[in-house]
Amino acid sequence: MDEEQTGASNNYMEEEAADTEQGDSENNSLHTPLLKRNGNLTLSSTPLATVGAKVSHIESLDYEINENDLFKQDWRSRSKAQVLQYIFLKWTLAFLVGLLTGVIAALINLAIENIAGYKLLAVANYIDKQNYVEGFVYFTTVNLLLTLLASALCVFFAPTAAGPGIPEIKAYLNGVDTPHMFGTTTLMVKIVGSIAAVSAGLDLGKEGPLVHIGSCIASLLGQGGPDNHRIKWRWLRYFNNDRDRRDLITCGSSSGVCAAFRSPVGGVLFALEEVATWWRSALLWRTFFSTAVVVVVLRLSMEYCKNGNCGLFGQGGLILFDVSDVSVRYHVVDIIPVAVIGVIGGVLGSLYNHLLHKILRIYNLINEKGKLHKLLLSLTVSLFTSACLYGLPFLASCTPCDPSLQEACPTTGRVGNFKQFNCPSGHYNDLATLLHTTNDDAVRNIFSTNTATEFQYFSLIIFFALYCILGLFTFGIAVPSGLFLPIILMGSAYGRMLGTILGDYTKIDQGLYAVLGAASLMAGSMRMTVSLCVIFLELTNNLLLLPITMLVLLIAKTVGDCFNPSIYEIILDLKGLPFLDAHPEPWMRNITVGELADVKPPVVTLRGIEKVGRIVEVLRNTTHNGFPVVDDREVPLGHLPTGERELHGLILRAHLLLVLNKKWFLQVRRRTKEWEVREKFTSVDLAERLVKIEEVAVTKDDMEMYVDLHPLTNTTAYTVVETMSVAKALVLFREVGLRHMLVLPKFQGSGVSPVVGILTRQDLRAHNILSVFPHLEKAKAMKEGN
Amino acid sequence: MDEEQTGASNNYMEEEAADTEQGDSENNSLHTPLLKRNGNLTLSSTPLATVGAKVSHIESLDYEINENDLFKQDWRSRSKAQVLQYIFLKWTLAFLVGLLTGVIAALINLAIENIAGYKLLAVANYIDKQNYVEGFVYFTTVNLLLTLLASALCVFFAPTAAGPGIPEIKAYLNGVDTPHMFGTTTLMVKIVGSIAAVSAGLDLGKEGPLVHIGSCIASLLGQGGPDNHRIKWRWLRYFNNDRDRRDLITCGSSSGVCAAFRSPVGGVLFALEEVATWWRSALLWRTFFSTAVVVVVLRLSMEYCKNGNCGLFGQGGLILFDVSDVSVRYHVVDIIPVAVIGVIGGVLGSLYNHLLHKILRIYNLINEKGKLHKLLLSLTVSLFTSACLYGLPFLASCTPCDPSLQEACPTTGRVGNFKQFNCPSGHYNDLATLLHTTNDDAVRNIFSTNTATEFQYFSLIIFFALYCILGLFTFGIAVPSGLFLPIILMGSAYGRMLGTILGDYTKIDQGLYAVLGAASLMAGSMRMTVSLCVIFLELTNNLLLLPITMLVLLIAKTVGDCFNPSIYEIILDLKGLPFLDAHPEPWMRNITVGELADVKPPVVTLRGIEKVGRIVEVLRNTTHNGFPVVDDREVPLGHLPTGERELHGLILRAHLLLVLNKKWFLQVRRRTKEWEVREKFTSVDLAERLVKIEEVAVTKDDMEMYVDLHPLTNTTAYTVVETMSVAKALVLFREVGLRHMLVLPKFQGSGVSPVVGILTRQDLRAHNILSVFPHLEKAKAMKEGN
Repeated sequence: MDEEQTGASNNYMEEEAADTEQGDSENNSLHTPLLKRNGNLTLSSTPLATVGAKVSHIESLDYEINENDLFKQDWRSRSKAQVLQYIFLKWTLAFLVGLLTGVIAALINLAIENIAGYKLLAVANYIDKQNYVEGFVYFTTVNLLLTLLASALCVFFAPTAAGPGIPEIKAYLNGVDTPHMFGTTTLMVKIVGSIAAVSAGLDLGKEGPLVHIGSCIASLLGQGGPDNHRIKWRWLRYFNNDRDRRDLITCGSSSGVCAAFRSPVGGVLFALEEVATWWRSALLWRTFFSTAVVVVVLRLSMEYCKNGNCGLFGQGGLILFDVSDVSVRYHVVDIIPVAVIGVIGGVLGSLYNHLLHKILRIYNLINEKGKLHKLLLSLTVSLFTSACLYGLPFLASCTPCDPSLQEACPTTGRVGNFKQFNCPSGHYNDLATLLHTTNDDAVRNIFSTNTATEFQYFSLIIFFALYCILGLFTFGIAVPSGLFLPIILMGSAYGRMLGTILGDYTKIDQGLYAVLGAASLMAGSMRMTVSLCVIFLELTNNLLLLPITMLVLLIAKTVGDCFNPSIYEIILDLKGLPFLDAHPEPWMRNITVGELADVKPPVVTLRGIEKVGRIVEVLRNTTHNGFPVVDDREVPLGHLPTGERELHGLILRAHLLLVLNKKWFLQVRRRTKEWEVREKFTSVDLAERLVKIEEVAVTKDDMEMYVDLHPLTNTTAYTVVETMSVAKALVLFREVGLRHMLVLPKFQGSGVSPVVGILTRQDLRAHNILSVFPHLEKAKAMKEGN
Repeated sequence: MDEEQTGASNNYMEEEAADTEQGDSENNSLHTPLLKRNGNLTLSSTPLATVGAKVSHIESLDYEINENDLFKQDWRSRSKAQVLQYIFLKWTLAFLVGLLTGVIAALINLAIENIAGYKLLAVANYIDKQNYVEGFVYFTTVNLLLTLLASALCVFFAPTAAGPGIPEIKAYLNGVDTPHMFGTTTLMVKIVGSIAAVSAGLDLGKEGPLVHIGSCIASLLGQGGPDNHRIKWRWLRYFNNDRDRRDLITCGSSSGVCAAFRSPVGGVLFALEEVATWWRSALLWRTFFSTAVVVVVLRLSMEYCKNGNCGLFGQGGLILFDVSDVSVRYHVVDIIPVAVIGVIGGVLGSLYNHLLHKILRIYNLINEKGKLHKLLLSLTVSLFTSACLYGLPFLASCTPCDPSLQEACPTTGRVGNFKQFNCPSGHYNDLATLLHTTNDDAVRNIFSTNTATEFQYFSLIIFFALYCILGLFTFGIAVPSGLFLPIILMGSAYGRMLGTILGDYTKIDQGLYAVLGAASLMAGSMRMTVSLCVIFLELTNNLLLLPITMLVLLIAKTVGDCFNPSIYEIILDLKGLPFLDAHPEPWMRNITVGELADVKPPVVTLRGIEKVGRIVEVLRNTTHNGFPVVDDREVPLGHLPTGERELHGLILRAHLLLVLNKKWFLQVRRRTKEWEVREKFTSVDLAERLVKIEEVAVTKDDMEMYVDLHPLTNTTAYTVVETMSVAKALVLFREVGLRHMLVLPKFQGSGVSPVVGILTRQDLRAHNILSVFPHLEKAKAMKEGN
C-alpha cells in the first residue's frame, strides 16, 4: 500500500528557490545544488495503517516527559512515601504480569492438549478400525469447526487479534499506537482463538499470540482494567502515561516469549533484541523478574499436572526439547555441514520472507472484500490442511520397528514417536508420526535423538514440502497465529534431511541437525541472533551445542541480510506502521530539517494568553497534536513593545481540550497565579486523553474570553535548529522518544518567528521524505553499513 | 576527593537577581523562588580524575558525528566498494579481537598454571618431607618476587594497568577518555603483571584484567597498532573516530569476559548490562561474533593441551565448574535457604562495597606518597597473604578419607580435592585443599558436588574470614587485579557453610550452595542480574539451576541497592571520572540549562570568517574544545547591516589547530570555494587530534590574515533552548553521546546573541551543579524510583 505514491517521482522540479529566503544562499559555495524537490507535493502526514484488516487512523505516543508547571508541582509535592508506593507498585505489576501470563499460558496449553488430544484419539480409533472415511470426515469437521470459531471471533469481535501481534507491539514500543490493540476483547479473542486455531491443527503456533497476550495483560493491569470498568485506584494513576505503559508492555512481551518457550533469559533477550526500541538496565532487571515468575508458575502447573489432574496434558504442550542427555561430540570437519545448514537457512529464510510478503499482499486484497471472504479463506486453508495432514501419511510406506530402541514402538495413543497408524503391528508410519499429532509433538518427534534411521527421505521431503506450503498460506488468515512454530517445523525438516543424508559421515546426532535447521531458518527469516541462541540453549538444555548454534545463527543471518529485511520489518512495512529505524538512511545527511519544515503547511502557533475563539478554531481546523506557544517579549513598563517574540514551549492538543472542557477561562488577558491552576487541574487530569473537539461545547460568549496557556505548556520541549540534518534529528527523535520536534530558526532578528516548524514521526519517515525529494533516492543505494 | 568542595555549601546567598535579565521574571507567578545559588562559585569544569594513582587531565570523547561540509563531501564521494570495505573490515576486526583475546587468555592461563603449579609442587615436596620452614621460605620468596615483578611493572611502566580496568572502560564507553588506558605498554604490563600477580597467590583474579586486555587489543587494532608505529593503511582510517573505536572496545570487553568465564552469551550480556552506555542491535550481533571466536579459540587450545603439550596446564585454569551431572531437585521449602543466601549476599555485598571504599581511600593516600610506598604496600600484602595461606592449614585437623568416594583421596600433587598436606596417609587436610592451591582450583574444590561432608565448619569459617580480609586489602594494590574471583571465593565460603549447616535438611547439594553463595555476593556487590545469571548458567552448565539462581540474584541485588551503589559506581566516583548516569536526578527538573549557562564564564564565540589573531588568542586563553560560530546575518547588496546574527554551528578546537598548523589563511575576509578546502584538507586530517596550540607557529603577519571557518564547522550541532530543564538536557546529552551542547536563547530579537552558552559533561554532573546550587540538595533525598 505504500508504493503508489512514489509513482509520482518523475515530475519533480528543479532546485527550489524558496530556500534563499531562509538565508541559506550563503552556503552555496559548498552546498552542491542537490536538493531537487518534487514540486507538486507537500510532506504528507496521513497517519494511516492497516490494523486488523482495515485501514485505521493511528496515533503517535508521547514518551517524552511533559514538563509543564503542573507536572513540576506534582512532582515536587510527591512525598517520599508516594515515591515508594510507585516503586512498590511497579514491581507488583511486574509480578502480576508474570503471574497472569504464566497462568494463562498454562491454561492455553492445557486446553490445546486436551482438545487436540481427544480429537487425535478419536481419529486414531477410526483408523485402528480401518474406518478411514469416517476418520477423515470427523477430523476435517472438527478442524473446520475450530477454525470457524477462531476465525469468527477474530473477524467479528477483534480484528486486531488476528496474526501474531508482535509487529504491532514492536511499533507500540517504537511510539506508534494502533487502536484496539491491547483491549479486553482482543485479549479474550486472542486466548480463545489461539486455543481453537492451534487445536484445529493449522500450521501456526501459540508463541506469537502468547507474546501479544502478555502485552495485553500488562497494558490492562497498568490502566487498572478494561476501558469501561477501570479501577480508579489512586496509586494506579501514576501509570497513566505512555512511558510507564511502555515499560509494562516490554515486561509483558518478554513474559510472553518466556511462557512460549519456557526460556526466561531468552524472553528477556527477545524483548531486548527484537521488540523494544528503548532499553534501560532497570528495565532489564524488572523484565527478568517477570520472566522468572512465569517460569515458576509454569513449573508449578506442570508439577500439578504430573499426577494426571489435567486430562491429557502431560509433559507435552510446553515445548521443551530436552536433548541434554545427548553427548555432543563434533570434529572440525563437522563445521562444514553446520555451515551448509546456516547458508541454506539464510537463503530459505529470505525466500520465505519474500514469498510471504507476496502472499500477504494477495491476502490483503481478499480480506478487504469483506468479513465473509475472510472467513472463507480461513476455512479453505483449514480444509486443505486437514486433507493433507490426514491423507499424506497413507503415501508413506511402513517401517519395521527397530527392536534395539528403548522407546515404545509402535504406539497407537495420542503421543509417541513411532505411530502405528495404518501399519501392521510391529511397524510404524514415520509420516504419521509427524503429521497425525499436535505441532508441538511433531517438533518433539523430529527433534528426537538417538533415532538416526527413524525417518525416510521420502517422508521428510513430503513433510518439508507440505509445511512450506502451509507455512506460506496459513499465516495471513484471520486467526491468532504465531510465526515461530511454522518456521521451526520447516527448518527442522531440512535439517533432519541433511543429517539423514550425511548419516555415518557426521558425528552429530540427526536430532541435533533438526534443531540446527530450525535455528537456521529462524535466523534466516527473523534475523535475531543472541536471543535465538539463548532460546535454543534453554530449549535444548545443552550448553555444549552453543558454539555450533552460534555459528549457524551468524551465517544464516548474514546470508539472509544480503537479500531482504527481517519478516517483522516486512510486516511492519506492509501494514504501513511508521516504525522509526535505529539508523538514519545515509542520504538523510543531505537534507536539513529546515527543508522538511518548508514543505509542510506553515506551523500553527498559539500565544501564551490566547483567545478561546482562536483555540477552538485551531483545534477544529487542524489535526495537530501539539502547538508551539509563542509570546511577545515582555518589556519593562513604559517602554514600547519591540515586536520581538519568544518561544515559551509546546502545548498538547489534549491539554487544550481539557481547558476548554473545564471552561477555565479568564475575562481579561492576564497571567494566572499558581493556585488558580492547581485548584482546577491535577496532574491526573493531564494524563487523560478522552475528550474530542466535537464534544466540547463552547458558547459564543466563551469565545471572547482568554486562556492562560503558560502553566499547561511544556517549557522543555526538545528542539533542533533548522540547519540540522534530518539524519541527526532522527537520532534525537528516536533516542529520546519524541512525538513533536520543534524546529528553530538559526538566526536572530525582530519579526522572526521563534519557531519555523514542527516535525512529527511521519515527517521523518524515509518513504515520506523521498516522495517529496525523489532525487535523494539515487543516494539510497549507497546505504552505509552499521 | 570529591567531597572537599561541598564544604562550601553553607555560605550560599539568597535568590540571585541576575536571572531577571534573561526574561525569566514572568514565570515567577508559578515558579516558586527555588533557585538559590551559591553566589561565590561558578560552575567548575576541572576535568581531573585519578588515573593510575595520580590525578590526570581527562578528555571527553566525541561520539557525535561532526557533520561539516568536508565530512559530507567525504561521505558523498565514498563509493559502494569503500562502504563494503568498511563493513568487511569491521567484521575482520571483530574477528581479530576475538582471536587475539582468546589466544592471550589461553597463554595467560597456561603461564599461570605452570608457574603456580611448579611452585605448589615444590612446596608440597617440602611439606612431604616435613621441611616446613624451608617450604615457607620458598613459598613466601617466590610469591614476593612475583608480586614485586607485577607491582614494579605497574608502578614504573604503566600505572593504568593496576586494578581491573573495568571502571575506566565503563567511563570510556560513557564518553570519558582516560589517558594511557589502551596503549601497548598498558597491554603488555597487564598481561605479564596479571600472570605474575595471580601466580603469586594473591587474592585476585585474571577476569577483570582480561576484560581490560580485550579492550586494549580492540583499541590497538582499531588504530592500526601502537601509537608510534601505526599502520597507515588507508582502510583503517575509517576507524579513526571515537564512534567506531567505542564499538570496537565494546567488542573487546565482551570478548574479555567471555575469555574469563568461557561464557559467550554472558560476555555479551555483561558488556550490555554493566559496561556499555550505548547499545545497538547491530553491535549485539558483532559482539556475539567476537565472543563466539573466543570460545572456539579456547576450545582448540584446551584440545591441544589435553595431550600434555602444555606442561602442568590441564583442565584447570579456565574456570568451568561443570555441575551438569548433579541432579537438581528442590522443593518449595528449599526456597527459604535460597532466599536467605540472597539476603546475606545483598547485605555482605553492600558491606563489602562500603568497606572497600574506605580502604581504597586510605590506599589512595598511601599511593600518593610515591612509587616506593606503592611497592612496599604490594609486598606487605603479598607477605601477609603467603603467611596466611601457608600457615593456616596447620590449624585444621586431619580428616580421614571417605572410602566410598570415587575421587582420589588423599592427593599429594598440585591439584586434587583432598590434599594430604601435613596429614598421615589416608587422611586429608580440608583447609589445605582450599588454601594450598591456585584460586581457580580453590573455587573448583569448594564448588565440588557430592562431597557433602568434605569441609568442616571450622575450616570454612577460617577460609571465609581470611578471604574477607584479603579481598578487602588486596584489591587496591598496584598490580593488575580483578574483582570477580575474590568475591566468588568469599561468597562460595558462606554459601557452602550454610549448605553444610543445613546438611540433610536440604535437598540441594552443598556444592550448589557454594555456587549460589558466590552468585549472591556478586549480585550484592556488582548489582548485575541477567548477565551474572547467564555467566553462572554457562559456568555450571546446568539449566535446572536457573530459577533459583534468578531468585538469589534478584534478592541480593534488591537488598544491596537499599544500602549503596554498585562497586563499579563507587570506584568511578572515587576516581572522579565524570560518568553520566542513565537517570537524571529528580531535582534536575527544577533547574534549567539557562541557569547553568549563567553561572559559567561567558561563552566564547568565533565569527564565520575570523581573524587568525583572534583564533590564536582564543585558543591560548581558553581550554574549551568547541566554539560556536556566529555570523552576521547577510543582507542583500545595498541594504544596511541589521545587526542581526545567526548561529552557523560549532567548530572543534582540533580543527582550528589544524587550520593554524596548515596555515590555510586568506588575505581578505571572504568565503572560500569548495575546491579550496578539499585541496587542503581530507577527512582523514580532520580525525587527527595531535597538535597542541603551543606547538603551532604563527608569525605576526599571519595574525592579520583571515580564516573561513564555515567549511570546517559542524552545522548540525545538537542544541537546547535555555528554558529546558537540566534533567531533559542530560537525557539528550547521554542518549545521543554529546561532547558539547549549545544553549540557545528562547527569544528572538536583534542584538541578541544566537547562543547563550555551551554545556559540557562536567557541567551536567550532579555534584558540580550541587556545589553551585546547594539548595537543590534537599530535594536529592527524594530520588525518584526507576
